[in-house]
Amino acid sequence: VTRHPITPAERLLTAIEAKRAGRSLIPEVISSIIHDYTAGRIPDYQMAAWLMAVTCQGMDMAETLALTRSYVDSGDRIDLSSVRRTVVDKHSTGGVGDKVTLFVAPVVASLGVGVLKMTGRGLGYAGGTLDKLESIPGLRMDLSEQEMLAVLEKTGMVITGQTARLVPADAATYALRDVTGTVTSAPLIAASIMSKKIAAATSGAVLDVKFGSGGLVDTYEAAEHLATIMVELGAACDLPCVAVLSDVHQPLGRAIGNALEVREALEALRGVEVPGFSELARLLAGLMLRLADPGLDERTANERVRAAVADGSALAVFQAWVAAQGGDPRCAEEPDSLPRAPYREVVTAPTSGWVHAVDARQLGRLSVRLGAGRLAHAAPIDHAVGLIVRCRIADQVHTGEPIAEIHMRDGDRAGAQDAVRAAFDIRPQRLDPLPSVHRVIGM
Amino acid sequence: VTRHPITPAERLLTAIEAKRAGRSLIPEVISSIIHDYTAGRIPDYQMAAWLMAVTCQGMDMAETLALTRSYVDSGDRIDLSSVRRTVVDKHSTGGVGDKVTLFVAPVVASLGVGVLKMTGRGLGYAGGTLDKLESIPGLRMDLSEQEMLAVLEKTGMVITGQTARLVPADAATYALRDVTGTVTSAPLIAASIMSKKIAAATSGAVLDVKFGSGGLVDTYEAAEHLATIMVELGAACDLPCVAVLSDVHQPLGRAIGNALEVREALEALRGVEVPGFSELARLLAGLMLRLADPGLDERTANERVRAAVADGSALAVFQAWVAAQGGDPRCAEEPDSLPRAPYREVVTAPTSGWVHAVDARQLGRLSVRLGAGRLAHAAPIDHAVGLIVRCRIADQVHTGEPIAEIHMRDGDRAGAQDAVRAAFDIRPQRLDPLPSVHRVIGM
Repeated sequence: VTRHPITPAERLLTAIEAKRAGRSLIPEVISSIIHDYTAGRIPDYQMAAWLMAVTCQGMDMAETLALTRSYVDSGDRIDLSSVRRTVVDKHSTGGVGDKVTLFVAPVVASLGVGVLKMTGRGLGYAGGTLDKLESIPGLRMDLSEQEMLAVLEKTGMVITGQTARLVPADAATYALRDVTGTVTSAPLIAASIMSKKIAAATSGAVLDVKFGSGGLVDTYEAAEHLATIMVELGAACDLPCVAVLSDVHQPLGRAIGNALEVREALEALRGVEVPGFSELARLLAGLMLRLADPGLDERTANERVRAAVADGSALAVFQAWVAAQGGDPRCAEEPDSLPRAPYREVVTAPTSGWVHAVDARQLGRLSVRLGAGRLAHAAPIDHAVGLIVRCRIADQVHTGEPIAEIHMRDGDRAGAQDAVRAAFDIRPQRLDPLPSVHRVIGM
Repeated sequence: VTRHPITPAERLLTAIEAKRAGRSLIPEVISSIIHDYTAGRIPDYQMAAWLMAVTCQGMDMAETLALTRSYVDSGDRIDLSSVRRTVVDKHSTGGVGDKVTLFVAPVVASLGVGVLKMTGRGLGYAGGTLDKLESIPGLRMDLSEQEMLAVLEKTGMVITGQTARLVPADAATYALRDVTGTVTSAPLIAASIMSKKIAAATSGAVLDVKFGSGGLVDTYEAAEHLATIMVELGAACDLPCVAVLSDVHQPLGRAIGNALEVREALEALRGVEVPGFSELARLLAGLMLRLADPGLDERTANERVRAAVADGSALAVFQAWVAAQGGDPRCAEEPDSLPRAPYREVVTAPTSGWVHAVDARQLGRLSVRLGAGRLAHAAPIDHAVGLIVRCRIADQVHTGEPIAEIHMRDGDRAGAQDAVRAAFDIRPQRLDPLPSVHRVIGM
């Protein structure tokens, strides 16, 4: 009886059917799917069907680990052997107003621990760190690996776009997930994030896993599930990780929008206490220090973080780093040298009471519509525009008081005022503030 | 605030996400997806993701009906107003050895009820009626609608390939389902089948829904679920349907393979009782008569069917029909004028006992490997080769007795003997025969 050789497409079809029926795939099958897809031997429509089957039926840890390793193996790893410091990484699953990296990297670097952070552009309501930093005139975010290591060696930190030679299989798969409704799968998210952390080959990573309307997942349970998978993947791949579960029902800090967020991070580095931002940022910086030095206790770590801000050393590192990547270091001293929107409008409280909700997703979407973000890949953005949110959940407000500012390119943006107001829920009952961090996993 | 127009891809992405999350889609969304996909405004990879989300999460009746109607609306309907008879249709979900159409169409047509049957090619272990009929020299299976109506008018029956103007959206979607592991979804199957029946616009259809290793679905429950959806879709679209739930754990009749099956159907039309075939075929023919004439009782219908075979009128219609479609009518008198394989091998019982299983899927797959079927679209097939299965479940056999014949193109097909033997389970315990029909739905 004649047989014909099995093609990659046939092998994938068998895997699709098995996954659709709820069965687990063996590691070899997963690695051959990723290998074949990256090599262009599998059409997008079959990969899309497999990704959706995975999204609907899930993957167990062995499958997720195989996927993560396949992503890592598709490209190079960063070689940090020439760097004299211990280097740590940090990742956030994304949140409206999240400018934490801009604070923690210089703080941690100023305390002798190296920070290597590869970052991306934003899409949809949550902005990207790369976009935010590009509001600093001249700052290069496209360093080669050699340049990256040189900046890290010189200033103790580096933040740059991901190099194309790292996890190309994840990049290809992510582009397809993005247009096929398969971005929300916890194992697919975990493998995508962790493959990049593992390929960056640092000594450890702090993961900020956010939940709430302004984040990637809505519920605490979903964030905990995702964080647990990621910490476990890290452990299996010799990358110690700590995950923080943090709330982003309301925006992180006050500023939403690229230059506005850089300004806010600079204020925090100058010692200004930013409600809803500074506390979480200090916690994450402390965890990065403790990941680099497991003997360090929580209290000492936190004291060092406060000191690095108070004595100006963190801000100095920020300035040196900006200069090392070709940016204008004046921004640290003169925040007004950053792009500024020509029009501002103040939004006032329509009623008196206590703030029960400040919907981060709605404000994030409005910010995108103002021009601060994009709905399509590679669309241009306006670094100057955005929102400043003046109050947080549990704050008391009075009718006519300013609750937000809209920073606009044009004077006539009908609907922006109403959209901001609709994001606020003000009621006559007093309530307690929302805790911003709910749990730390892995430390 | 500026807005951008919603593109078909964005609308689909929203629908994919909703379906993936287990929500129902409104009929307008489903019809726009099908319309946009057929018009080439949606890429295959997004459609594949949607189809997999539907396969994993299911569709309710309103969604399935919307999908069916969208398929129908994508093309023309057959106009049977010029045909003087009541015309009925027949469909089988497919099974190994299923040559029922070749028997029921001439029987029903000889009794004054028109039969219009559009049919397709086989893929995988279950053969297609179109392939089987092409073993008759000269027979055309690519009639235009005009030719189809002329043959129907002249001989009372017509069997031909589906015209391209019928349900093009289903054809496009089916091609994608076939390569993305989304063929097994009950609502997708039901919409695909029923859209073709509805577009054929007959007075009613008898549906043979098969379950078991040689069919599309494995279990009685899955077949019942599928049949119920199809009968309900027919009722909603003014196409009265009757569904028969029949067992195909073992092959239908004795012959598997194109010309071998045509020969067996001709034997049955000549009055030979074919175990595992004749009873089901007569039941389906009787139901077709009763669908055309609701006043007809079961007993009278069955008597007429037997008489049409006994008096030769069904065979005469078959001959006239073959001639009307350009085929050589000699085949009805001289079955040996059909293609014959040059090599035959007898497979004998390796042990004595009772037959507990004759695995239809294994035998169907072997038949494909012998050349009788195809694993890829448009691959050529060998009409002469196949298998004759000499015993059925509950038959008693003795060591060395013939249990099957292999009809081959080449004398040396290593493994075919073993493959046939492996499909039989012979045990020392006696058992009862398997009922071939388990339930009739809708009459």
